[in-house]
Amino acid sequence: MYSHAYFDHNATTAVDERVMTAMLPFMTSLNNASSRHAFGRVARHAIDTAREKVANAVGAHPSQIVFTSSGTEANNFAISGMVTNEFTRLDSVGNPLNKNMIISGLEHPCISRPALALKKYGFQVQQLMPNVEGVIEKSALETTLNVNTALVSVMFANNETGAIQPIAELAEIAKKHGTLIHTDGVQGFGKVAIDFADLNVHALTISSHKIGGPQGAGALVLDKRVDIQPLLYGGGQEKGLRSGTENVAAIVGFGRACELAVANLENYHAHTNQLRCQLEASLSQMNAVIFAEHVNRIPNTSFFAFEHIEGETLVMALDRKGFAVASGSACSSDSTEPSHVLLSMGIASDLARGAIRVSFGLENTVEQVARFVVVLEQELKRLKQMVALVA
Amino acid sequence: MYSHAYFDHNATTAVDERVMTAMLPFMTSLNNASSRHAFGRVARHAIDTAREKVANAVGAHPSQIVFTSSGTEANNFAISGMVTNEFTRLDSVGNPLNKNMIISGLEHPCISRPALALKKYGFQVQQLMPNVEGVIEKSALETTLNVNTALVSVMFANNETGAIQPIAELAEIAKKHGTLIHTDGVQGFGKVAIDFADLNVHALTISSHKIGGPQGAGALVLDKRVDIQPLLYGGGQEKGLRSGTENVAAIVGFGRACELAVANLENYHAHTNQLRCQLEASLSQMNAVIFAEHVNRIPNTSFFAFEHIEGETLVMALDRKGFAVASGSACSSDSTEPSHVLLSMGIASDLARGAIRVSFGLENTVEQVARFVVVLEQELKRLKQMVALVA
Repeated sequence: MYSHAYFDHNATTAVDERVMTAMLPFMTSLNNASSRHAFGRVARHAIDTAREKVANAVGAHPSQIVFTSSGTEANNFAISGMVTNEFTRLDSVGNPLNKNMIISGLEHPCISRPALALKKYGFQVQQLMPNVEGVIEKSALETTLNVNTALVSVMFANNETGAIQPIAELAEIAKKHGTLIHTDGVQGFGKVAIDFADLNVHALTISSHKIGGPQGAGALVLDKRVDIQPLLYGGGQEKGLRSGTENVAAIVGFGRACELAVANLENYHAHTNQLRCQLEASLSQMNAVIFAEHVNRIPNTSFFAFEHIEGETLVMALDRKGFAVASGSACSSDSTEPSHVLLSMGIASDLARGAIRVSFGLENTVEQVARFVVVLEQELKRLKQMVALVA
Repeated sequence: MYSHAYFDHNATTAVDERVMTAMLPFMTSLNNASSRHAFGRVARHAIDTAREKVANAVGAHPSQIVFTSSGTEANNFAISGMVTNEFTRLDSVGNPLNKNMIISGLEHPCISRPALALKKYGFQVQQLMPNVEGVIEKSALETTLNVNTALVSVMFANNETGAIQPIAELAEIAKKHGTLIHTDGVQGFGKVAIDFADLNVHALTISSHKIGGPQGAGALVLDKRVDIQPLLYGGGQEKGLRSGTENVAAIVGFGRACELAVANLENYHAHTNQLRCQLEASLSQMNAVIFAEHVNRIPNTSFFAFEHIEGETLVMALDRKGFAVASGSACSSDSTEPSHVLLSMGIASDLARGAIRVSFGLENTVEQVARFVVVLEQELKRLKQMVALVA
């Protein structure tokens, strides 16, 4: 299987061997960081060190990091936790205030679904639609925000197109209205520089397994002035904001992965951007539609489609030829609906169903991309002949 | 540090080396189980196999297992998820029905705190107090249950005293009233046989890192007829009940740990029970008060106190002499409040503040216990002299 070329780094990455080295001692030792004996103190120290590394990677203070088990958990925590207090806030005549939330149409389901789940408590959820290049414009937020808006959440970089959103500008608008703003930074973090202070948001989600760290760790970077309610209640870990025995090894691995990601950032950009340029030059010759092609994107991601070719079919054909790519976000690969991201951009369903995502990592090579282009052309030719026979 | 004798297995256990062997291939490979390419399918298969092992260990069907990141998460999921639908259930004249929940006074904060957090939605929470031996009696539930009770949650075995609760009998009462019942099995699982069908509950929480598995995995074993709401929304993993990229290595490790725990159960009981008998014979000679001494307990746990000696002080003294024990549940070791478990049993605060928990594991030895008894006697003598000097 390992002769496969893996072009699906936005779904998950392999754990870097330096990360494994850092984690292993904590995999086999006794780590309850809440215990007061010597074993507990070693675990506590390891978590504190990792917290500093994670904070450094996003220009935050260690006290602003709340560790979670994943990006999904951090996003659910942000969405429900930042608005829960709004349920009981009343205006001067006793009516509930701030009962709506604005998210973008680009969001991963781990933002949109918890937002929609709050509707049962009377919350309204409004979606900002991106332009045809997959970018949320300032004007869209300006016209949608109102005094009842409790929270805005717009992702930093889209997991499918890679398009980077103007978060700092959106944050300025939200703050001018006194509204909280969160951004899901899972797909941008480790791929481009992210500075929590520059983004100017109240909360930022990041995840370990997208940047060469292990599964089982994520974080919400949080402005401490935000009155957030926990999602997980219990023993009071993470200053009461996220209870549960800390996953020490995963947190240590996450810290090390953050350190490496920051150190590799320039190299990562140069390398993955080179591979993408190589790929997209060929794609253009093959008449592919490349989504978000002309906007600022994370460097490793290319999202494209061919007319009349189903993405799912092409993914499986490429898999048989030794290339792992995605037909949309991995998390929705169980479904055959066209990408909601492309639909929100106004792309027609038929073309959206053809979408293929290639997401590179540092270990991918020019040779792999060259081989991929050859195989892609062959498979396209074969599939087009089949389509012609059926039609 | 590793010359320390570790007597704190109810806080966390070391990962068994056979578990590490099972996990390692999944630590370094590419595992997004939602991806459709070859890498994704390998991860999916590994999760399916682990799910069978976990199900086998509790006499459940694999489809009844919902993987979570921890016991804390599974407990929060059960508490909020099993009652959320009750918010909108109305009686024949339009008033809300089933607006209370019953938990025991023995519960870990990861049950009691999420329960109390539901009060903001109008939920009432009632607590069942145990008898002086730390056991919830059937009559306590019978007199508290009423038509408005949406959920009962009583833990299987207490983390501090080790006392095993009559869950099947409590479940019979709850079901007779048409009430849902959940049990937190985290401290009992892997220490005594647990059969989901025999317990007759709607939901059971278990955790990996208490039984020689890694941190980062837990499960809710669930009667599929229960209409439960997710705690984590997103990509729809775990049949939509728990979203988030699966922590493949942790789940694989949890599965292997379950297999080993079941195979070792008799040996575990014989060995840890022998060590406890050895310890408690000496404790009695030292005039210790042993809590829940005369009821059915998990075999590895002894919870005791000496008059006029503070537990926290003794834990730190023993730590300096090379013994890791706890002064209460590890998760509340940050606080100096007396154990809420002992207070609920009617133990006086002064004595409760003296409580020490020893929890054995398979790697502990008769020699360690003999040495512990000697050190304990020395430290007690020293501390009593200090108390006498101060008084």
